Order: sequence, then structure tokens, then C-alpha cells
Amino acid sequence: MTYCLGVINRAGLVIAADSRTNAGVDYISAYRKLFDFSIPGERAVLLCTSGNLAVTQSILTLIEREIQDQAEVNLHSQKTLYDTACYVGDKIRQIQERDRPWLERDGIDFQCSFLVGGQLQGEDPKLYLVYAQGNCIQATPETPFLQIGETKYGKPILDRTITFNTDLNAVAKCALLSIDSTMKSNLSVGPPINLIMYERDSFQVCHRLQLRLGAPYLAKIRHLWEDSVRHAFDRMPDIDWQPDDNAEDILID
Amino acid sequence: MTYCLGVINRAGLVIAADSRTNAGVDYISAYRKLFDFSIPGERAVLLCTSGNLAVTQSILTLIEREIQDQAEVNLHSQKTLYDTACYVGDKIRQIQERDRPWLERDGIDFQCSFLVGGQLQGEDPKLYLVYAQGNCIQATPETPFLQIGETKYGKPILDRTITFNTDLNAVAKCALLSIDSTMKSNLSVGPPINLIMYERDSFQVCHRLQLRLGAPYLAKIRHLWEDSVRHAFDRMPDIDWQPDDNAEDILID
Repeated sequence: MTYCLGVINRAGLVIAADSRTNAGVDYISAYRKLFDFSIPGERAVLLCTSGNLAVTQSILTLIEREIQDQAEVNLHSQKTLYDTACYVGDKIRQIQERDRPWLERDGIDFQCSFLVGGQLQGEDPKLYLVYAQGNCIQATPETPFLQIGETKYGKPILDRTITFNTDLNAVAKCALLSIDSTMKSNLSVGPPINLIMYERDSFQVCHRLQLRLGAPYLAKIRHLWEDSVRHAFDRMPDIDWQPDDNAEDILID
Repeated sequence: MTYCLGVINRAGLVIAADSRTNAGVDYISAYRKLFDFSIPGERAVLLCTSGNLAVTQSILTLIEREIQDQAEVNLHSQKTLYDTACYVGDKIRQIQERDRPWLERDGIDFQCSFLVGGQLQGEDPKLYLVYAQGNCIQATPETPFLQIGETKYGKPILDRTITFNTDLNAVAKCALLSIDSTMKSNLSVGPPINLIMYERDSFQVCHRLQLRLGAPYLAKIRHLWEDSVRHAFDRMPDIDWQPDDNAEDILID
């Protein structure tokens, strides 16, 4: 499994990913899932991948090859981030067309999805989720985050805290905690965590971090977080239990 | 969808459930999912249901009927809570055998699962999860909680806080927050929330609560919780971003 998330706001973009890949529970490996395709000064383009590893690696190989070959249409020839997301969608469709029948007939999951975040000249920072079908949706001020992979465990913390106006450093910490929560609840999501913070109008990645297993910062925020959660319970008012004459409300006679 | 959870510890048992049932997103109703089958002074038996509503209602009807008919084998004739869980499993198998072929051929989900918690004379309080296949697992001191339905959103808060030694009142608050987190992240889980706290060796339910939409206590703990989470971020140490010479770690050249 995988967990990647992107968050966009007024000040820029945060994008983060775990690195665990598994085929069953008895074959677990680490693969990078966050890739920086930026051309500093010209365009910031970040990709995250989720899904069948052979499929996503093939798509990335195609994307890289067309850049290297300076193909007329390639990731870097796109004029907007929407076009970039559509280009990634085209590559997904190309590989799905080639491989899907072979995977499908053996009952192998061929699904994949991508996050495409960044900023091109003349645009605001943007973030897209590209589906296995090659179409995409965009993060908006109302829903500033998008997730792929094992998304549920890490969503409550985002739902409770992230808005379009949240400070970019707080967003980065929240993204780490969202991934850490997922790692704690699901073994198929694991370190190292890769994290990138992109500041609006810089057109290059200045802040990046890789947290390996046992990284002191990760241990520290996990400890502080659990401590805060326990303190939060202490602050909760005690439950005012119902008097017994309301009992029939949830009793079977 | 549904979210129910049970937590067992030295001092007793907490069991809680939401009340939302949906067929698609355009047909949402409220149905009770937590049922008290205790005989005060003799046995505490609490059931939670998840899955196909027609299936779970039929199972409950069977269970109630066999109690009313004083059938030779019924829920109240069981000698241990394990036997009680197996009896519930038998009723699940009975209804699955009758209805499954008719549901399966129209592609309708016939799955269901039950939580069975409580205490019988001569035993410690126990908690079981009964699967759609009629078999069951038991909560243990190492993993003192069991969940059914939409379990993922509410799991991180349990993973971070609940142990076999956690105070029973703190467990009850945590269960409410776990359901509230799930309600916030998934529309298919909704109020009223039913909550029961059972104290070891009392052999009857003394503490019960039903929180309807807009209940002041629910609004209060949600507000306090979100406040605590935001404060927790403020306490997190700032991220120590990597110097740029480590960039190749997550860069594609």
C-alpha cells in the first residue's frame, strides 16, 4: 500500500509520501513515491504515485524518457499544471492500454493514481489528483488537500485542522502527523517519509526532508502528539450519563 | 455504513455505535445498532450490528423470538460469552443460508458482522467480533478494542490512547471521539450515537447515553478536541529542513 497527500494554500504547497510497497504481507520493500520534476526558475512540478508498482514505474519511465528525448510533447512542454496533469493522465492511459488485459486476466490489481502539484509561470500553485482512468480533479480553497493510497487513517487529522489559510509550516507538520498516524494504524504504510514544501512564486523546491525509520524528529513529534492527545482527554468534561428512566431508549425489553 | 466499537479493560467494557444506515447517498435513515440483551443481576450481554440491514434485522428477530419462545437453545441459555458469540454466529449462518443466494445473484452485499460484549457469572468481562461467516475473534489485553463497519477513520485515536489499563471513563470519552472523528470524515456514519459503559461484576448496564444531532455535550467535546489538536501543532518543534546538498535523495535529475 501507499499513502501520499498534497495540500495547497495561499502560500504554496506541501506534498508528502511514505515509501512502503508490498505484495502481500510477506514481501515488503521500500520504493520512492515522491518525485521532483521541477526546472528551477521556470516550473515546479512534483509527482506522487500510488498503486501497482510495475504500472507506476512504467509511467514514470515513459515520462522521463520523453523529457530526455526532448519529444515534441513531454512533461516540460506543458503550458499549465492542468495540461501537465492531463499529460500524466495520457501516460497512465498508454500503460493501462498495454498492460491491463494481461493483469486483468490473472486478477491482478492494475489501478494506479498520481498527485501532480506545483506551479507554472503565470499561474497560482495548483494540485491535481489523476485517476487510473487518466482524468483528474483539482484541490480548491474549500477542499485544499488531496490524498491517494491508504487515505482513511490520516484523514481525520486533516479534516480537523487544515484550511486554505493554515500556515505552510503547520501544514507540513500536519502532513507528517497524518502519515505517522497512518503508519501506526496500517503496517502497509512505512518509512522513509519524503516531504517537500514549495513556496509560492519560487519556481523551485527549497524545503525537502527525508525521515528514515527511527529519525529523532519523527520520534519526537510522535511522542509530543500522543502526549497532547492524552492531555486532551484529561480536559474533556466527564460524561453526564442518562438517568435510568431513559433506559428504554436503547433497551430491548 | 456503520461504525461500532467495543473496548474491554480491567474495569469493564465500553461499547458504542452510530445510527446511520444508507442505501446509496440518496437514501439515508437512522436505525439503532446497539442492543442490550442483559438480564440484570444474571448476565450482561450487549450486541452491535453492522452490514446489510435486512440481514442484521432478521438475525435480531430470530434471537429475540427464541428468547420469547423460551427455546431450549437461546441467547440467554448460553453458559459463557464465547458460547453467546457462537450462538449469534449460528443465527448469522441461518439467515445467510436462507437469504444469501437471493442477494448474491443480484449483486447485493449480504455481509454483516456483530460485536458481542458483556459478562456472565464466573467469567471476566469479554468482547467478541462475530464475522459474516459465523466465526469469531476475542479482544485481549494486547488489543483491547474491536471495531465493525467503517473502522479506519476512528482507529488512529484508539491506537494512540487505549490500553487495557486505561480508565473506563477515559475509554468512554475516547470511544465518543473515535465515532465523532468518523462522522466528520464520512457522511455514511451519523448520529444519534449510543454509548454504554459496563462496570465489571455489576451484571447490569448502569451507564448509558444517547447523543442526538446537536447534543451540547457532543458539540463541546468536538470543540475542545479540535482546540487541543490545534494547540498540539503549536507545540510541535519546527521542521529542520535538509540542506540542499542532500537534494538528490528525492530528486530526479
